[in-house]
Amino acid sequence: MRVAVVGAGALGLYYGALLQKSGVETHFLLRRDYEAIRCNGLQVYSTTGDFHLPQVNAWRTPAEIGAVDLVLVGLKAFAGTSYQELIAPLLAAGTEILTLQNGLGNEEALAALFGGERILGGVAYLCSNRGEPGVVHHLGAGRIILGEFVRSNPARVEQVAAMFRRAGVDCTTTADLQKARWEKLVWNIPFNGLAALLLQTVDRLLAVAATRTLVRELMLEVIAAANAQGLSREIAPGYADSMIAFTDNMGEYRPSMQIDRAEGRELEIGAIFRNPLGAGLAKGVAMPRVEMLATLLEQVQAGLAFSRS
Amino acid sequence: MRVAVVGAGALGLYYGALLQKSGVETHFLLRRDYEAIRCNGLQVYSTTGDFHLPQVNAWRTPAEIGAVDLVLVGLKAFAGTSYQELIAPLLAAGTEILTLQNGLGNEEALAALFGGERILGGVAYLCSNRGEPGVVHHLGAGRIILGEFVRSNPARVEQVAAMFRRAGVDCTTTADLQKARWEKLVWNIPFNGLAALLLQTVDRLLAVAATRTLVRELMLEVIAAANAQGLSREIAPGYADSMIAFTDNMGEYRPSMQIDRAEGRELEIGAIFRNPLGAGLAKGVAMPRVEMLATLLEQVQAGLAFSRS
Repeated sequence: MRVAVVGAGALGLYYGALLQKSGVETHFLLRRDYEAIRCNGLQVYSTTGDFHLPQVNAWRTPAEIGAVDLVLVGLKAFAGTSYQELIAPLLAAGTEILTLQNGLGNEEALAALFGGERILGGVAYLCSNRGEPGVVHHLGAGRIILGEFVRSNPARVEQVAAMFRRAGVDCTTTADLQKARWEKLVWNIPFNGLAALLLQTVDRLLAVAATRTLVRELMLEVIAAANAQGLSREIAPGYADSMIAFTDNMGEYRPSMQIDRAEGRELEIGAIFRNPLGAGLAKGVAMPRVEMLATLLEQVQAGLAFSRS
Repeated sequence: MRVAVVGAGALGLYYGALLQKSGVETHFLLRRDYEAIRCNGLQVYSTTGDFHLPQVNAWRTPAEIGAVDLVLVGLKAFAGTSYQELIAPLLAAGTEILTLQNGLGNEEALAALFGGERILGGVAYLCSNRGEPGVVHHLGAGRIILGEFVRSNPARVEQVAAMFRRAGVDCTTTADLQKARWEKLVWNIPFNGLAALLLQTVDRLLAVAATRTLVRELMLEVIAAANAQGLSREIAPGYADSMIAFTDNMGEYRPSMQIDRAEGRELEIGAIFRNPLGAGLAKGVAMPRVEMLATLLEQVQAGLAFSRS
């Protein structure tokens, strides 16, 4: 299996490093970390054991990589992301594309460009941050749930999952990718949103009764919208409590959107907020608190754009 | 009429200056502006005409002022505000206390200390900011609506209103002070809250469709809670639109809570948010967006307190 990692942020670097370490031929398309990784390799600091890859296939353009069997997409989910430019040179007839991006709409965007049959999607419950160039910190968790965008060949998903498991990743498959995506949103919407808005780590949000309650209320709105989508099985309200309990164990974790704001980057408001809000509204489910949080984040985003210009 | 202004911020300095200019014997209890006003008097820059008061009765302690006929309270409405220390030395048997503070609960707090009969309340629709010490900027509006906390002597309220009118203030009286307070909250809750949270002026909040909608939704929640309080007449939903139209004329106005945050001061979350939320809840009216905004502001406040310590 020949794999290309496109979007080598904290997620792409971490999973790509594990794949390479397990013997998969892995190629990384890099920008910020190119020089550092070319010179010094890739360093992973992990709660499950640090390791260093001295020799990494690091590239600046997808044409240098050429056709692969699997493209692992870890890009930020922005409207303007140029999938065509970054992914097309990596494709042959049988190439599969796996997006582990956050939110809703990623499989749809990739399918529109490259055809739905080859698209796999997954949600990753991973706590990781980038360090200095060439360094990634794995802070905990890392489970992946994989599914097909168009259900056509379950054996294929199982094969990709097996590759991740051989690399040491807790990876399962699902016949209902949409449900997995919504379950992840139950976490992403309150924690990414509130952490980015207030610039507070998840432990601080959960330590105060009023914000802990707000987290749960946001989660219940997401669950209500999810359950209007015709999922294979409803998400129980208790899922909110289990996600909060899961997060209680994360300590001072900074969700990716908080880091994006702190570093002046664009926020994934479309994929994580506006697309789910649209999907809810299409089924007649309003999410007043989620809507308010999205609106507030868009103002923060506008301020970031303003301060950059 | 002998008047003492306690809490000489933008509001207290502006109305006090107008009263003195109209011939009322006015005394100012000052902290930050004491030296500047003692030395150079008080400068008012106003959309209705600038003026300067070269000689001002400026004091550091209420004991220096002694008993007055009317205490005008323009203090910030905080739980810890020491009304006893600041106001008691100003009281004689017939002294009235007029609070123009924001939010709910101010008359109650003053009545508990000094007796309800002498308490008047008012809401001020005033756009003013402080400048350097000794300077106040009147940016527009200025209307006051006065009422009694315990309805006992309407002629008395009328007398105070007449004093303000002689000073050039558009001042009316109401038999339903509670309604006037809630109507002001229809403005204060969205604009003070969002401006403080996002550090954006009111024109920017209204220029974006999503925040303009959010302002209106917050207003409608406040109106619903107000109308559950047994007011003399219901507040129509259209009141929200008229408040938005009123604010469209304010330009780049920075509400007081935004300034408080920018300057690292405590925010009036209790009076403007938590007391109204409690009053709504007591009548079975939930205000999810107002509640969320209060919770977010409390986190901002906690951050301010943290950065001060």
